[in-house]
This record gives sequence, C-alpha cells and structure tokens, in this order.
Amino acid sequence: VPAHLRKISESTVRRLSLYLRALEALAEEGERTASSEELARRVGTTAPQVRKDLSTFGSFGKRGLGYPIPPLVSRLRDILGLSRPWSVALIGAGRIGSALHAYPAFRERGFRIIRIFDDDPGKIGERWGETVIQDAADLEEEARRAEIEIAIVAVPAEAAQAVAERAARAGVRAILNFAPARLDLPAGVVVNDVNLAMELEALSYALGSDDSEGRAT
Amino acid sequence: VPAHLRKISESTVRRLSLYLRALEALAEEGERTASSEELARRVGTTAPQVRKDLSTFGSFGKRGLGYPIPPLVSRLRDILGLSRPWSVALIGAGRIGSALHAYPAFRERGFRIIRIFDDDPGKIGERWGETVIQDAADLEEEARRAEIEIAIVAVPAEAAQAVAERAARAGVRAILNFAPARLDLPAGVVVNDVNLAMELEALSYALGSDDSEGRAT
Repeated sequence: VPAHLRKISESTVRRLSLYLRALEALAEEGERTASSEELARRVGTTAPQVRKDLSTFGSFGKRGLGYPIPPLVSRLRDILGLSRPWSVALIGAGRIGSALHAYPAFRERGFRIIRIFDDDPGKIGERWGETVIQDAADLEEEARRAEIEIAIVAVPAEAAQAVAERAARAGVRAILNFAPARLDLPAGVVVNDVNLAMELEALSYALGSDDSEGRAT
Repeated sequence: VPAHLRKISESTVRRLSLYLRALEALAEEGERTASSEELARRVGTTAPQVRKDLSTFGSFGKRGLGYPIPPLVSRLRDILGLSRPWSVALIGAGRIGSALHAYPAFRERGFRIIRIFDDDPGKIGERWGETVIQDAADLEEEARRAEIEIAIVAVPAEAAQAVAERAARAGVRAILNFAPARLDLPAGVVVNDVNLAMELEALSYALGSDDSEGRAT
C-alpha cells in the first residue's frame, strides 16, 4: 500500500486541514515557501510534528529551503479530497441548517449543497439561493437522482436516525451529523458528529478544573 | 492531587459528555442502572474503556450490578462543570450566531447567553429572546459588568483576534471560536475551535481514501 493510501489518524487529518489553511494564508501574503517552524507556529503544533506529518506524502521539504507552497497546497487538497466538488444534501432547514447553507467556507472548499429537504409544509417550496427546499418524503428518490454523496443532518435528535438511514439507502456515503443522537448506519457510511453543546462542555470542564490554560483542542 | 482533579485528556472529556447523554437517555427510558457494555454500545467505545474512564471518579460500578444512574449522572455533571450556570456572551449576530443563540442544548446545559454583541448598526438594538443586541464597541464594559465567563466568537476571520482579545481583557476565561482563524490569547484563556469546513474535510478525506468505513470521529 503506498504511504499516501495508508490510514492516517483523525487528528492527523485535522492537522492537514490546518496546514492547508496556513499555507493558503502564506500564499496570499506572497510567500512561496514555508518552514516547518512557521507552519507549526500557525497551526499550534511543533516543527518535528509538521515534518513527520508532511513526510508521509513525499519528499517535499528540502532542509533549509522550507516547503514549496504551491505543490504542497495542491497535494494537501488532493489528499483531503478537495480537488473535486462534492454533491451535498442538507436535511433539515431550521436555524442550524440555514446557518450551514449560508456558510461560505463549504462552497469555497467544493462542498456544493444542491438539495435541501425538510418536512415542514411551510418551508417546502421556499427558495434558498439556487435551491428550492424539497419535501423530506422525497429524500431517497431526489438524493439518488442528484447523486448526493454527503448529507448534512440538521434535524431534531428523534428524527436523525430515520433520515440518515434513508440517505444511506439513497447512496449517501458520508454524513455530517448535527443532531445530538448517535447514528447507527451500515459499514461503508462514514459519520462525523458535531455536537455544539459538547464543545461548550469541554470549556466548562476546563474552567472547572485546576489547570485551565491552553487549548481545549 | 485527588484523582478527579488530575488532568484528563480532551478525548476522555468528550467521552464523559457522551456517557452523560447516554445515562440521561437511559434514565428517561426508566432504567436505574447501566452496564459498562450498554454504555459502550451507546457511546461507540468498548466496555473496558468505559470502566477505565469511570474508575477515575470513584468506585461506582459494582461488578455485576452496573452503574447506578442517578449518582453517576450527578457526578459527571459536576466534573463537566454543568452543576452551575455559566454566563455566556455571543459575539457576532450573523447566521451562525443566530443558530447558536437558538440552540436549545446550550440553555439546557446551563450555558446562558446573556449578552449579544455586533457591530452592525442595523442589528444593534434588535431583540433576540430576552436579550437585546448591543454595540460591539461596548464589549469590554458590558462583558465585565455582566461577569461573562465564556464567549462564543462568531465573527468573520479577520475580526476574530481583536474581539477575542477584548473579551479576554474583560475577564472572559474561555472562548468557543467559530471563526476560521487561530486565536492567540494569554495563558489562562481556554480556546476551543470549531471549524465546520474541517468537519466536512474529514469526510471528504475518508471518502477519497481506500478504507471509508466507520466513524470519522
């Protein structure tokens, strides 16, 4: 198995996302190369960790010269699956759904929300940008027709498992789950849970404990 | 140092949050005790991991009897800092800010958003629930007066560092940062970054790689 196809850990994937952002910022500032020290500083890690993470993907950094930014950006975009657009459905057109739909970083990264579903008759037919909210009853048929690859689940907890199962049956392979419910789906469907209350709990834990300094993540 | 005050890892804190949710759900279902196997199943970990995590906080589980739910819920709430309310300010009253303000789980967990700030004259003075949006120019003074402990930063990237510094000067000790910018703050201020585009990138990475199954987190 080539090194770049070996499984890398979730925390490494997150650092790769951060390196990509740092490198893009450096490019915008006119830089052509980046040292592991500079990347470490911007991302909040150590230079040896940067070198270790990036060494997995080929011989980029030449000692003393730093990493050439444009090829490394393009390599990281490839690895993170950002070199092609993804077809995304938003399931749940409530407040969180609305905020996510308007989130510019999704579109910039190639995550195109091309279908929106809700079961509220007052919302079905409403236009959000270029998309008209569709009846959640048509989820399977419409998701299959649109070849949706990723679903964002932003429905109440009690509805989440059912809509996620229906999305999976329609061929969706990855789910970003904002509902405070654990989804039980067939192997082959990747789930990433975002629980905003838990993010605050990590802070209240840190504030309550003796050693409240540094980053919670 | 007593065991419960020792530093526990971020991933342990997240599992404690998940155990708490699972125990609350079991209590609602009428259960009085929970086995480590049942907790492991609901949280997506192993029974030995559950026993290890919970053993840190005293001798709860009696072999064969399972964990008694009410005292364990109350212990976990204490540990996570949820046994008292927190005074929270929302900085940035845009779409993400609006979704966060309406998020019921924050209030249920005792995170009370008692101040909202924005610099848009069209928004200042608007009422959201029981709170009137205030001018971000008054951030330091108002945050200090209201004894704000946690700030949620939901402003554009380029504004994030400045508002976070001002919040820290006003006595805020923890920041939940939704801006795609790394905040550089004095030691003693805990920062937790939530980057929604990175959550999708973890999925596109998984979809692009050979072993796209299981959970991304």
